[in-house]
Amino acid sequence: MKLTVDTQELNAVLAVASKALSAKSTVSILEGIYMAAENGELLLRCTDMSLQIEATIGASVEKGGACVLPGRLFADLARKLPGEETSFTLEKSSMLVESGRATTTMQTENAKDYISMPDVHREFSLTISKPALKNMIRQSIFATAQDDSKPILRGVLLELEDDILSMVALDGYRLARRKERVKVTGEFRNSVLPSRGLLEISRILDDNDEDINLVFSKTHVMIDMGCTRIITRLMDGEFIRYRQILPTGHTTRIRANRQELMDSIDRVSLMAREGKKNHIKFSFEEKTLTITANSEIGNSREVIAIDRVGNDLDIAFNAKYFSDVLKVLDDEYVTLEMNSNISPCVVAPENGSEYYYLILPVRLFTAS
Amino acid sequence: MKLTVDTQELNAVLAVASKALSAKSTVSILEGIYMAAENGELLLRCTDMSLQIEATIGASVEKGGACVLPGRLFADLARKLPGEETSFTLEKSSMLVESGRATTTMQTENAKDYISMPDVHREFSLTISKPALKNMIRQSIFATAQDDSKPILRGVLLELEDDILSMVALDGYRLARRKERVKVTGEFRNSVLPSRGLLEISRILDDNDEDINLVFSKTHVMIDMGCTRIITRLMDGEFIRYRQILPTGHTTRIRANRQELMDSIDRVSLMAREGKKNHIKFSFEEKTLTITANSEIGNSREVIAIDRVGNDLDIAFNAKYFSDVLKVLDDEYVTLEMNSNISPCVVAPENGSEYYYLILPVRLFTAS
Repeated sequence: MKLTVDTQELNAVLAVASKALSAKSTVSILEGIYMAAENGELLLRCTDMSLQIEATIGASVEKGGACVLPGRLFADLARKLPGEETSFTLEKSSMLVESGRATTTMQTENAKDYISMPDVHREFSLTISKPALKNMIRQSIFATAQDDSKPILRGVLLELEDDILSMVALDGYRLARRKERVKVTGEFRNSVLPSRGLLEISRILDDNDEDINLVFSKTHVMIDMGCTRIITRLMDGEFIRYRQILPTGHTTRIRANRQELMDSIDRVSLMAREGKKNHIKFSFEEKTLTITANSEIGNSREVIAIDRVGNDLDIAFNAKYFSDVLKVLDDEYVTLEMNSNISPCVVAPENGSEYYYLILPVRLFTAS
Repeated sequence: MKLTVDTQELNAVLAVASKALSAKSTVSILEGIYMAAENGELLLRCTDMSLQIEATIGASVEKGGACVLPGRLFADLARKLPGEETSFTLEKSSMLVESGRATTTMQTENAKDYISMPDVHREFSLTISKPALKNMIRQSIFATAQDDSKPILRGVLLELEDDILSMVALDGYRLARRKERVKVTGEFRNSVLPSRGLLEISRILDDNDEDINLVFSKTHVMIDMGCTRIITRLMDGEFIRYRQILPTGHTTRIRANRQELMDSIDRVSLMAREGKKNHIKFSFEEKTLTITANSEIGNSREVIAIDRVGNDLDIAFNAKYFSDVLKVLDDEYVTLEMNSNISPCVVAPENGSEYYYLILPVRLFTAS
């Protein structure tokens, strides 16, 4: 194995691929980076068996071959290589890396011992524009559960209705659903994608408006972006049947400026945080919303102008669950729909039906 | 107590003063921020009894007074206040803070219960330009000990010889000394300043070329920058008599490009890190320095051009102790002076005698 690559390109693809590197794996070879060179291309691959990322760059290959390099060392070294070009020469199990005045020899492992994820045999695929996919991920993923009490809730559900794909995430306190039209080839099946894999997908997607394909097998999903391929395992098990918890109507509907609401919650949260439970109270009146929080050391209060249809209502929330959703929306105005202070509140952009967020209130401790 | 201040100014001084705030103090009132208003000024003060920072801004004071506000809450809130102006109204023990549409009430504690550091009665003072003081701190403080095995080594020694002030820091493996001419008023005494206090002083110093005074009492040092005053305790106990460990001559002298040396050490360190002990080896020959590191998974090697007077020498160091000093120097070339691979190496800029750094070698494990 003997080849030369552009150092900057090497760096760029390694930064991408190493996102899937196992920091500390029970299978020590997965702490390595698989590299293979042939036909003028160098391929780099990392996986932790849940997520696999591989990337290809052009290389001047004198002699093809494959091996596994020490992951952390190689990834860190690549960032600092001084030469414009970097050459690799494998002799027996020792890889000589030369770049400018830096010379490094690394012990490699046998490429045959590397464990890659299985090929993805297409059952069905989805076609969607990159920015739309990125937005779907951004606006749903934050609502996934952060603990392992119900592992399936660390994933995002993909479901389909009339060529409209929904991504749904929930953690027992709130639910986020983002819809987008897609093109489906083959027979769609509901799938749950782990949040970590989705996050890496959204990071790798560039911002141009092209379409990309998500290719699903029974157990995996693969995205092929030409030079970069990313595979993630689908999660096992049934997602929660969430539709039964969605409210069917509302008695109070509010329209508020998203930025104003977000800023006020942000400030009032500081007092809520002192109160340990992070609860903030909303009092909706005809033209105003009063947001308050109390703690032993004081209380905060903000008033913002709103439009309201329906009844006066006092309702309390965990501040974080509210600010989380306001941060990922881009709209100038949002609506809040509620029935009572013990039933869920639905947050949505003023216009369109692509986005739906449901948040459970907390019990009010003080009489309103 | 009733006053109004500019919110941006409030923010700026709070950011400075809160650096001395006790995050979690055994004396709960020290988790608070002392504020006092009179004669058109608002003073804010924080201390953890080792470091005290106070800052003053202009205020429109309707009614003077003083109190102690909850520290973390007030500091965090100030950063987010929406109004251009912020008003404070104290009623009984409750402080009403109003800014734009944000209204917060905070429970205060009695100003009489606050514990400030004692006034600094001048024994002597030093006058030095701000940039010079900043540089002295930057180029010495990193060599202070990070653990508490010898508490005095967490401080920086100030000593004087013919109006030349030295700041000396050492941790048992390396020593840094930075000299600068100062004006002394009164009778100078060697003093040891805690690194934390020095760090905050250097952060607060702005970059203009004015002189400032360091006023020393027997137990404290105070810097008065007009609107900001910072006081830090001096450390008790005798500093290590370091002069006896400074080598008196050398048999090998090297001149190397600082940036080249730093970059090469940086890369070779990656391999040294894999070897756990972080050791790198220097081999000095007539025109070249070869830097190497070995570990189980490989080895790294870099060659840089140097000028040498004296003998060939193989010597090994902890990589971090070498890169630390190269980072804080600004000079294009540095010199290294050595006697043997078991005696200290002296690093200095090529020109001038203001800076002196000594680093102990580590034993070579492999035959050279």
